[in-house]
Amino acid sequence: MPPEPSRLYYRAVATVQVAVIGSGSDHEARAEEVGRLLAERGCTVVTGGGGEVMAAASRGAKEAGGTTIGILPGERRDDANPWVDHVVVTGIGHARNLAVVASGDAVIAVGGSWGTLAEIAFASRLGRRVVILEPGHDLEGLPRASSPDEAVELALSGLGGSGG
Amino acid sequence: MPPEPSRLYYRAVATVQVAVIGSGSDHEARAEEVGRLLAERGCTVVTGGGGEVMAAASRGAKEAGGTTIGILPGERRDDANPWVDHVVVTGIGHARNLAVVASGDAVIAVGGSWGTLAEIAFASRLGRRVVILEPGHDLEGLPRASSPDEAVELALSGLGGSGG
Amino acid sequence: MPPEPSRLYYRAVATVQVAVIGSGSDHEARAEEVGRLLAERGCTVVTGGGGEVMAAASRGAKEAGGTTIGILPGERRDDANPWVDHVVVTGIGHARNLAVVASGDAVIAVGGSWGTLAEIAFASRLGRRVVILEPGHDLEGLPRASSPDEAVELALSGLGGSGG
Amino acid sequence: MPPEPSRLYYRAVATVQVAVIGSGSDHEARAEEVGRLLAERGCTVVTGGGGEVMAAASRGAKEAGGTTIGILPGERRDDANPWVDHVVVTGIGHARNLAVVASGDAVIAVGGSWGTLAEIAFASRLGRRVVILEPGHDLEGLPRASSPDEAVELALSGLGGSGG
Repeated sequence: MPPEPSRLYYRAVATVQVAVIGSGSDHEARAEEVGRLLAERGCTVVTGGGGEVMAAASRGAKEAGGTTIGILPGERRDDANPWVDHVVVTGIGHARNLAVVASGDAVIAVGGSWGTLAEIAFASRLGRRVVILEPGHDLEGLPRASSPDEAVELALSGLGGSGG
Repeated sequence: MPPEPSRLYYRAVATVQVAVIGSGSDHEARAEEVGRLLAERGCTVVTGGGGEVMAAASRGAKEAGGTTIGILPGERRDDANPWVDHVVVTGIGHARNLAVVASGDAVIAVGGSWGTLAEIAFASRLGRRVVILEPGHDLEGLPRASSPDEAVELALSGLGGSGG
Repeated sequence: MPPEPSRLYYRAVATVQVAVIGSGSDHEARAEEVGRLLAERGCTVVTGGGGEVMAAASRGAKEAGGTTIGILPGERRDDANPWVDHVVVTGIGHARNLAVVASGDAVIAVGGSWGTLAEIAFASRLGRRVVILEPGHDLEGLPRASSPDEAVELALSGLGGSGG
Repeated sequence: MPPEPSRLYYRAVATVQVAVIGSGSDHEARAEEVGRLLAERGCTVVTGGGGEVMAAASRGAKEAGGTTIGILPGERRDDANPWVDHVVVTGIGHARNLAVVASGDAVIAVGGSWGTLAEIAFASRLGRRVVILEPGHDLEGLPRASSPDEAVELALSGLGGSGG
């Protein structure tokens, strides 16, 4: 699909998208910090659109004037938390976890349980860069970060683009 | 998930999202016009992120300074057309058609074949308002519009919000 | 994946699989007849595993000593009707409609509303043979049958294999 | 959906379904043994329908006269290995991993990489019993078995039904 040159004038500016995944109310403060740092670096924050870590990362991004996408499991737009700008309603339940990580150029995991582990596995399967913010799942071969700042640094290193 | 009041200060501004579906190079001019009109009304344009009608609707929205979301069937972000701002990579093939229409507060169909018919059916099943831009599928009970302007009018009527 | 010849001795016998789709309690008698006829022809009956037309087609197949597969939208095996032999639990909601028709070598539609229309559209998109049992959706290019017997005949004609 | 009593005479006999997941040619011998043991216990073997561990588990089940289901990621029935009796064609790519484990009353993991880890995580998220056949992923809280026999024992213990 080679568009005519003149029409590219209006094209979208490619922004780095980073998926922030995880769960657990204990991890909200760090997730919010991750969201804030990503927005300050010009990245769009992608989450599953729900509560806890997802809400906190989105809130952090909005506090810093950033942009957020929420990819919901259900069939109703209203299920998104109030810090989601762009709501994607999938209707495919837990299978939406695949879409969340596939939509990130990189992925940062903050806390989390089985659903997060499925996301980390899918992201790795698809070749997305995954960073684990400690404490969290301990998986061989995946970089770990000891702070939100380091997590964002590691996620963006080597990506290029506006967030790199 | 009742957020603390002060934190809502930063929340996302709910924007009306309208899905534009369809296919066929014959229908690109009208799809572009639909995208442009939606953007002028402050709506975000949601498409499947691919070529023909999807590209044209997104291009029209960008020409008018609007915002676009593309929900892709494959596993690679690079498959999106150049007029998609926010790329959702689902990896679920044709099943992403469900996500495209579920993510619209209303749906406008421009041309199209079997894939579009599946989207119209899913949208109706989920209770989304669907408008068919003539000529196109002829389905009992669904409003038809004879121009892009009328299609946008019909899609937004009764939705409320910024696009209503 | 070329298996060693000796191991093919134990291989599965390829059976023609026919998806029966639709809804509406008015159509149960005909759906049951379709299921019975398919089983008598040696075909496995695939449905969405739920009630009405899905249950009736599966029941008809079991009454004739046939085999049935039910592909459920939810996350619980117990949601299948009592005439499903092999239960597939997808957890992907309406997107399972794609799997139902994709799993049929041919598809027979009996009654039905929007969900059925989505299935007919997906089946046609994937190149599956679709037969509409009258009355029902009227779609250009799709063969219509006036009786369960004719529907089964039309569905199996040209497929080859045990049911052809 | 309470069926009339007389019609239940023909109903399906509920069979225990066990999903066997994993990958890696090194693990085929053990997967084949798992498939064989499951079939001898009257269980239906569910897999992703592809090669290596999936093919081996299905082959083992067929060698013992058992029944197999294969849940494919693509859109073509022909992609199934030759030991799959009942082919489910999902068209949803890696998201079919959710359907594989959701369709098992219990899950046995034999070897495997990221895709298998996603399956283990989804299975645990859905409350399915998961047994890891050593060596393999080491996940807190999941029982490990040192032989195919022990894996089948652990998977079926507590399930009840024909395989318990």
